[in-house]
Amino acid sequence: MGSESEKWILMVTARTPTNIAVIKYWGKRDETLILPINDSISVTLDPSHLCTTTTVSVSPSFHQDRMWLNGKEISLEGGRFQSCLREIRGRAQDVEDKKKGINIKKEDWQKLHLHIASYNNFPTAAGLASSAAGLACLVFSLAKLMNLKEDNSQLSAIARQGSGSACRSLYGGFVKWVMGKEDNGSDSFAVQLADEKHWDELVIIIGVVSARQKETSSTSGMRDTVETSALIQHRAKEVVPKRIVQMEDAIQNRDFPSFARLACTDSNQFHAVCLDTYPPIFYMNDTSHRIISCVEKWNRAEVTPQVAYTFDAGPNAVMIARNRKTAALLLQRLLYNFPPESDTDVANYIIGDKSILKDAGIKDMKDVEALTPPPEVKDNIPPTQKSKGDVNYFICTRPGGGPVVLSDETQALLDPITGLPK
Amino acid sequence: MGSESEKWILMVTARTPTNIAVIKYWGKRDETLILPINDSISVTLDPSHLCTTTTVSVSPSFHQDRMWLNGKEISLEGGRFQSCLREIRGRAQDVEDKKKGINIKKEDWQKLHLHIASYNNFPTAAGLASSAAGLACLVFSLAKLMNLKEDNSQLSAIARQGSGSACRSLYGGFVKWVMGKEDNGSDSFAVQLADEKHWDELVIIIGVVSARQKETSSTSGMRDTVETSALIQHRAKEVVPKRIVQMEDAIQNRDFPSFARLACTDSNQFHAVCLDTYPPIFYMNDTSHRIISCVEKWNRAEVTPQVAYTFDAGPNAVMIARNRKTAALLLQRLLYNFPPESDTDVANYIIGDKSILKDAGIKDMKDVEALTPPPEVKDNIPPTQKSKGDVNYFICTRPGGGPVVLSDETQALLDPITGLPK
Repeated sequence: MGSESEKWILMVTARTPTNIAVIKYWGKRDETLILPINDSISVTLDPSHLCTTTTVSVSPSFHQDRMWLNGKEISLEGGRFQSCLREIRGRAQDVEDKKKGINIKKEDWQKLHLHIASYNNFPTAAGLASSAAGLACLVFSLAKLMNLKEDNSQLSAIARQGSGSACRSLYGGFVKWVMGKEDNGSDSFAVQLADEKHWDELVIIIGVVSARQKETSSTSGMRDTVETSALIQHRAKEVVPKRIVQMEDAIQNRDFPSFARLACTDSNQFHAVCLDTYPPIFYMNDTSHRIISCVEKWNRAEVTPQVAYTFDAGPNAVMIARNRKTAALLLQRLLYNFPPESDTDVANYIIGDKSILKDAGIKDMKDVEALTPPPEVKDNIPPTQKSKGDVNYFICTRPGGGPVVLSDETQALLDPITGLPK
Repeated sequence: MGSESEKWILMVTARTPTNIAVIKYWGKRDETLILPINDSISVTLDPSHLCTTTTVSVSPSFHQDRMWLNGKEISLEGGRFQSCLREIRGRAQDVEDKKKGINIKKEDWQKLHLHIASYNNFPTAAGLASSAAGLACLVFSLAKLMNLKEDNSQLSAIARQGSGSACRSLYGGFVKWVMGKEDNGSDSFAVQLADEKHWDELVIIIGVVSARQKETSSTSGMRDTVETSALIQHRAKEVVPKRIVQMEDAIQNRDFPSFARLACTDSNQFHAVCLDTYPPIFYMNDTSHRIISCVEKWNRAEVTPQVAYTFDAGPNAVMIARNRKTAALLLQRLLYNFPPESDTDVANYIIGDKSILKDAGIKDMKDVEALTPPPEVKDNIPPTQKSKGDVNYFICTRPGGGPVVLSDETQALLDPITGLPK
């Protein structure tokens, strides 16, 4: 490569969704390779509302690997980034771009440096699985840049080494992370159970709940659970395998009552083993509990469940409604029980797919204040003042597609001349 | 019995303690006989601070069985009262009081009616096991009135049929409820592991926590757990039996670190199986969680645990400190993190054994406000305004003795002439 050609920059931009587990991953059998103690199943969330966009670029003019997250430079020195980078570089292929006159031999990738910029279209600190989408997007975009021959399942096994649940973000729709048996992790990867069109009437509403306490990281939390919980092995070996089979059936048959029952009980059991950890881990708070009570009360009042809920390693509620009509009724209940502060614009309180708000007949705060208690609430006690502000906002979304390359260069996060964030 | 003699009233007054389980009872194998799915172990609380006093009386002039709780007449028709009354009447013996000229034959007890008055020296609604102390006191006092030959263990099997945990209130100190194997429940009763003098340096502080939500009754809660939790049988069959052996050893050897570890983990596991119930049951709230965090943080900062905690079917925290010095340090931490409302008199906020307050160097609100963050709190953030009022009050107490007959007639709750509440 001559001095003239050293000015080139090759870049790829990709977008990858987040996912929410409906049969939970909690506990590793190998901390370094990130191998789980049980299978898990997730729903991929529509990237229009929750996704990571990542631009990866390579140039002989780059002097070191660098990364920016949401515009701020971050260290790539962590073992998990290094695992992913090493695994991908090891599989890199020859890349030729005749138009730009670029010719990279596979062995060149070991010497070439990368610039990476990543952006979440949702608050990173909100506990919405940003690391899952982020690591998946890093692996996917690098694989495209370096022309890897591996398919998405094989890539998922690389993403897994960055962040366990990231492997499930390599596919859209409904995804299973097969735990695998091998010590080297080669058979621990994600497979798609069904794409997002298979069950497209589902609507997802996420309640971003205010947290008063700093949370335990999921990495240290699950390590503590495996080391101290007297129930986790029984869960992993006896309970989850049956639920995995049942959940696959429920998804295959679009059987919402079974889907809801399994998702709710498995979320609750995950939080139960957290509580059985020593010292105990509390991810849900009183607001989370009240959201569950609101949904459970309604589900019991109906002949068949209307809404499933699931909570990850934080207080946020992910609610899955069986269809749009149910989602509108759910939104009314949520706004009745968890109204925004009086000075909030409803448009900032319900974000994402706002058409659900229209279905619910809500235009502004007056409509929220006019909401009457749902029929299943017998005591008729209006929500207390205290409830206001317990939820920061709600995001309306749906099951969505997997990673895609964004070929439109205007969407790149790095400047094509400088290789630095735009 | 002639018309003249019909004016006599015979009465017995007794006092019975409450108890707090340190290895929890949760789940029945027989709903009617109240037979548990595992052994449990409790500490009896000093009746000076938490007890039930009951006066039972019999007279040929009484026309029906009647009962008053805290001065208010209540129904005796519930199956549990009826079970206890039937079991005791069936074991009644001849009673002769020569001084009063009373002679009751054992068969007379089937026809004679009872008046019963019961009083808790603590708020009934506070979730402090009032039913345990109440049923135990009912059975104990009736047994004395009717001259039963049964010992306290045999009486505990009767009290068990009124309220499971009541059987553990028939003894002071450290008590084990043996689950038994028989279908008729004859071998399911309480035994004393050690009396209250065996380990008398322990100090108990109870935080009565404000609840925002109505709680699930423990009767329906444990039924739901047995029917729906995928973890409860594993707990009952695999986990608890080992813990029972370890807890007996810890008590025998006054091994506080083991005692604390077992009490805390078993409380947490009980709440974990509640969360694993469908629909999930939440007894602890954010304040309970914060009390646990406060204790855990301190325990981790010390070489060896200073305080154990345990929570029953509600948000109240029962903390067991290894000795008086530790209890004073605990009280400082609790008052720092959970101060009373500014207009509260400290004497109404810390009740029971107030000498601990003196040990902690607290005389009034000024002393509370002057408390500095404990050394294990690194962030140095003062407790928020919000924390005030999260705890209603604290009760300082200790392990205590078993049921006693109060021979001083002035302590009777019924008028010796009318047989009605004083």
